[in-house]
Amino acid sequence: MSLRGVIPPLVTPFRADGTLDLSAFEANLEALAGRGLAGFLVLGSNGEAAGLDEEEKLALVAAARRLLPRRLLLAGTGMESTRGTIALTRKAADAGADAVLVLTPHYYKSRMTAEALRLYFEAVADASPVPVYLYSVPAFTGLPWPPGLASELASHPRIAGMKESSGDVSLLERVVSSVPARFEVSCGNALVFYPALCAGAAGGVLAVANCVPRAVVALHQAFVAGDHGRARRIQEALLPLVSAVATSYGVAGLKRAMDMAGLRGGAVRAPLLDAPPAALEELRPLVAKAEEAV
Amino acid sequence: MSLRGVIPPLVTPFRADGTLDLSAFEANLEALAGRGLAGFLVLGSNGEAAGLDEEEKLALVAAARRLLPRRLLLAGTGMESTRGTIALTRKAADAGADAVLVLTPHYYKSRMTAEALRLYFEAVADASPVPVYLYSVPAFTGLPWPPGLASELASHPRIAGMKESSGDVSLLERVVSSVPARFEVSCGNALVFYPALCAGAAGGVLAVANCVPRAVVALHQAFVAGDHGRARRIQEALLPLVSAVATSYGVAGLKRAMDMAGLRGGAVRAPLLDAPPAALEELRPLVAKAEEAV
Amino acid sequence: MSLRGVIPPLVTPFRADGTLDLSAFEANLEALAGRGLAGFLVLGSNGEAAGLDEEEKLALVAAARRLLPRRLLLAGTGMESTRGTIALTRKAADAGADAVLVLTPHYYKSRMTAEALRLYFEAVADASPVPVYLYSVPAFTGLPWPPGLASELASHPRIAGMKESSGDVSLLERVVSSVPARFEVSCGNALVFYPALCAGAAGGVLAVANCVPRAVVALHQAFVAGDHGRARRIQEALLPLVSAVATSYGVAGLKRAMDMAGLRGGAVRAPLLDAPPAALEELRPLVAKAEEAV
Amino acid sequence: MSLRGVIPPLVTPFRADGTLDLSAFEANLEALAGRGLAGFLVLGSNGEAAGLDEEEKLALVAAARRLLPRRLLLAGTGMESTRGTIALTRKAADAGADAVLVLTPHYYKSRMTAEALRLYFEAVADASPVPVYLYSVPAFTGLPWPPGLASELASHPRIAGMKESSGDVSLLERVVSSVPARFEVSCGNALVFYPALCAGAAGGVLAVANCVPRAVVALHQAFVAGDHGRARRIQEALLPLVSAVATSYGVAGLKRAMDMAGLRGGAVRAPLLDAPPAALEELRPLVAKAEEAV
Repeated sequence: MSLRGVIPPLVTPFRADGTLDLSAFEANLEALAGRGLAGFLVLGSNGEAAGLDEEEKLALVAAARRLLPRRLLLAGTGMESTRGTIALTRKAADAGADAVLVLTPHYYKSRMTAEALRLYFEAVADASPVPVYLYSVPAFTGLPWPPGLASELASHPRIAGMKESSGDVSLLERVVSSVPARFEVSCGNALVFYPALCAGAAGGVLAVANCVPRAVVALHQAFVAGDHGRARRIQEALLPLVSAVATSYGVAGLKRAMDMAGLRGGAVRAPLLDAPPAALEELRPLVAKAEEAV
Repeated sequence: MSLRGVIPPLVTPFRADGTLDLSAFEANLEALAGRGLAGFLVLGSNGEAAGLDEEEKLALVAAARRLLPRRLLLAGTGMESTRGTIALTRKAADAGADAVLVLTPHYYKSRMTAEALRLYFEAVADASPVPVYLYSVPAFTGLPWPPGLASELASHPRIAGMKESSGDVSLLERVVSSVPARFEVSCGNALVFYPALCAGAAGGVLAVANCVPRAVVALHQAFVAGDHGRARRIQEALLPLVSAVATSYGVAGLKRAMDMAGLRGGAVRAPLLDAPPAALEELRPLVAKAEEAV
Repeated sequence: MSLRGVIPPLVTPFRADGTLDLSAFEANLEALAGRGLAGFLVLGSNGEAAGLDEEEKLALVAAARRLLPRRLLLAGTGMESTRGTIALTRKAADAGADAVLVLTPHYYKSRMTAEALRLYFEAVADASPVPVYLYSVPAFTGLPWPPGLASELASHPRIAGMKESSGDVSLLERVVSSVPARFEVSCGNALVFYPALCAGAAGGVLAVANCVPRAVVALHQAFVAGDHGRARRIQEALLPLVSAVATSYGVAGLKRAMDMAGLRGGAVRAPLLDAPPAALEELRPLVAKAEEAV
Repeated sequence: MSLRGVIPPLVTPFRADGTLDLSAFEANLEALAGRGLAGFLVLGSNGEAAGLDEEEKLALVAAARRLLPRRLLLAGTGMESTRGTIALTRKAADAGADAVLVLTPHYYKSRMTAEALRLYFEAVADASPVPVYLYSVPAFTGLPWPPGLASELASHPRIAGMKESSGDVSLLERVVSSVPARFEVSCGNALVFYPALCAGAAGGVLAVANCVPRAVVALHQAFVAGDHGRARRIQEALLPLVSAVATSYGVAGLKRAMDMAGLRGGAVRAPLLDAPPAALEELRPLVAKAEEAV
């Protein structure tokens, strides 16, 4: 099991009435299965996990497992309470997840000290039947990753790595240089995928891998092959699309970019708002530019 | 129904093993019933709602309703999705809540524009069988309250007011001056309770009303009676306790301060950490100082 | 010497070519002399002190002293280095300032610990021939005021008070409750002038006192007379103008609001941009509303 | 003239009484002259420019010019007013600076829109007798760099590049991909020097080049030679020293690290505080580790 390579945080398509569109989800999985991806993440931030109930979450894990029986399948299982995370982790593993990605709890941010987070992740890892990956995404949680925490947790036998989504390459560098090689750090911010690889990331769990997987995979392959010039060119070609998705339109924009690439983004779930028609005009050439880079 | 006066956001006591201690919760309700409070809030931030599952939430609402059949009972029902909030709102109303307090969704913070929040609160209010109060607490959500939103929502017949917990008195002033008198704004930050009353708050939903209810109620009564000198003296006496609870120890500190006042705070639920022994030594004189101010 | 009452932080009018317009400055002083103000501040943030050279600064102090020989005259003398602040403080006192207002140094923000600031203010006060007032304005400096610092500095015989411009009423409360009565705290944020007076502020050093001095003075007088209803009504009438000046247009807007009130705002100095024509249309009714409140 | 390579932002040594120690400054210049550096910056943030008066600033420029008549010499000349920056730029050029580095004005942060900054930099460049480099350092200014501004300014014939010190590699990438090749972007944050080079930086203006110039130059040379493995190893060896200097101790720590490397750091100027004795013990092995990496 390894985060090496590119993993899409799968989106969760909804119908216009807000119900889960499992068939669109399955169609996307089939379409993405042959694109050279290293694995698949369900129930991440881009999967709108925050707005799903438990039944829906487990249905998504089970569907992914059923369709892709031999591929690496990660599931996001972080809740606000330790017991809630443990319970969901066990159910997700039962439903077929190979490993779990556990978000930092963050509602009581000022109380989420390095000590509180350490005890939290250790308790979850102690109870988890599958490997645990740490997940930090300050843009959503408002919680910066504490210095030194990754290195402390890396000694736990069931904590296998981290998805670092802040986009702060110096943080990623410092984490990588503080942990043993078996602890893999994956970049969760496509704005810095190539620089993060240079800084020691094992791979990327990247939203745009849902819509332009070939380009993202090609970037990673170029890096692995030592072709820095090509890796940087693809990174540069991805930037406008990544900026539009990450900064301007969010998941709603990502879903429209998927439509353009022949997948089925579906609606977002309220209170998220669907992307305005203008977004389509803006996104179309950016998707094309990213695809042409390969 | 009115937020006028003082309302404690009831804590949720847990046993040492992290399970819900409903009997401690009920004991607290009985102890607080005769203290001149204007009503009670269950499932607020200080009630650790973020770490409760739905069954526990509804058990707390039902218990409070059963013990205090004729008192104002608010329940916090905000979830990350519109449909989730509506579902919980209906169940809480069925379980006996007179009104609901609805937190701003906040995980996808950059997408929670004024427009998205307006549509969210309107959809919840449209579907709610009981009055809806808006709830903004940027210290936990990382989401500032957008200018103009309260005034837009105040025209909805089922949106009755707002709990404003930022501590930004100028925001509270501006909200108060932008809404009709029927829309009540309650102060959710005890550091500024007296100044907020001066600025037009109808009352306060205040954590320290769990442990020193008499002092908080006396402050409000002094203000209503026009005795600004006494109101300000009580505010000043409350400050050190409020600072310690809000800034240094959080809910864990509040629970220990409740023990000192003869209530049953109980444990916090992990990943929150119980207050260190030193906290008790620090809190004891602050509770005493607050109580002596009356 | 006292900050009790209302003090305008005088604007510095410039000609269209960016040169200092001392005659406009003097005309404003004459116009403001009889409005019941408690004193005058030159070289504050609203006086664009950051963009003035030393010669200009001293010319402004000297002009104010000459025109208003018997009125309280404060001068802003904070520089980034201790020696620079001391040198300017001595020159401002020589030029006629009765006291100085000393901004927190802030360029090296992460190094400006409570200890560094304490030593800074003590060194300045030790060397100053006139009383020193502390000045904190995080909106410009990016530096929050450290807890406990005011109370430590209040024991210095030449440190007489503080201008607190964050708008955080709870901070002002805590400072007031931690210092002896001789140490006066003045509110520097008109969004919260009335709540700040309730919380113990001695008065206000407020930009809008440049353009609607009568209303601001009337608010203070109402408060002193115990007429909280009137004080709150005037505060509410001031809010839209204060918001427009503080949030939307800054000093450039304040200068146009002064023109409307018959004073001479003059141009701002680049890189500040003059207010767009639309600002005038927006400001005019807000100035009128504030004046009508009296 | 080019930012390609490594440029130290020279520290300004002071005597214990706070006066400028020009002989220590000159000794450092002589020691650094033969270390393969691409040029030298005086009056940067690490040169404590914020606390220097004009006479001192020009003395430093003149001394550097005199000692290094043929080497690239940059001078920091940003002031808060456009006219102030223009005046100092001309004097610095007269004193021998080959180019100037112009910091974003930042006191009136909310007014420093992209438009205000564009007009500012254009006015400075129009008036400057030498090439102008833009300088953004949000850790000190509190002002993020606006999207699109670099690309607009890159068309000015006298604006030659930018020092980007935020450490945000994605911003650097986006700037690089939006400007013509003649516009050079230099990395001003050693935490990300190697990733920034990968992302297209021309070189680095880096504090640690004052104390471990050989390691920083070797990192750049390895990158230029395509030896990414070596570049990354040196980056990793630099990290602990850079973290200690940038995060824990600032300029005061940098000066002590210079002493360890045989240079003359001197005292910092108040209100900055000299590094505590414990800092020396912490820094010594970090300097050694960085030097050993070469």
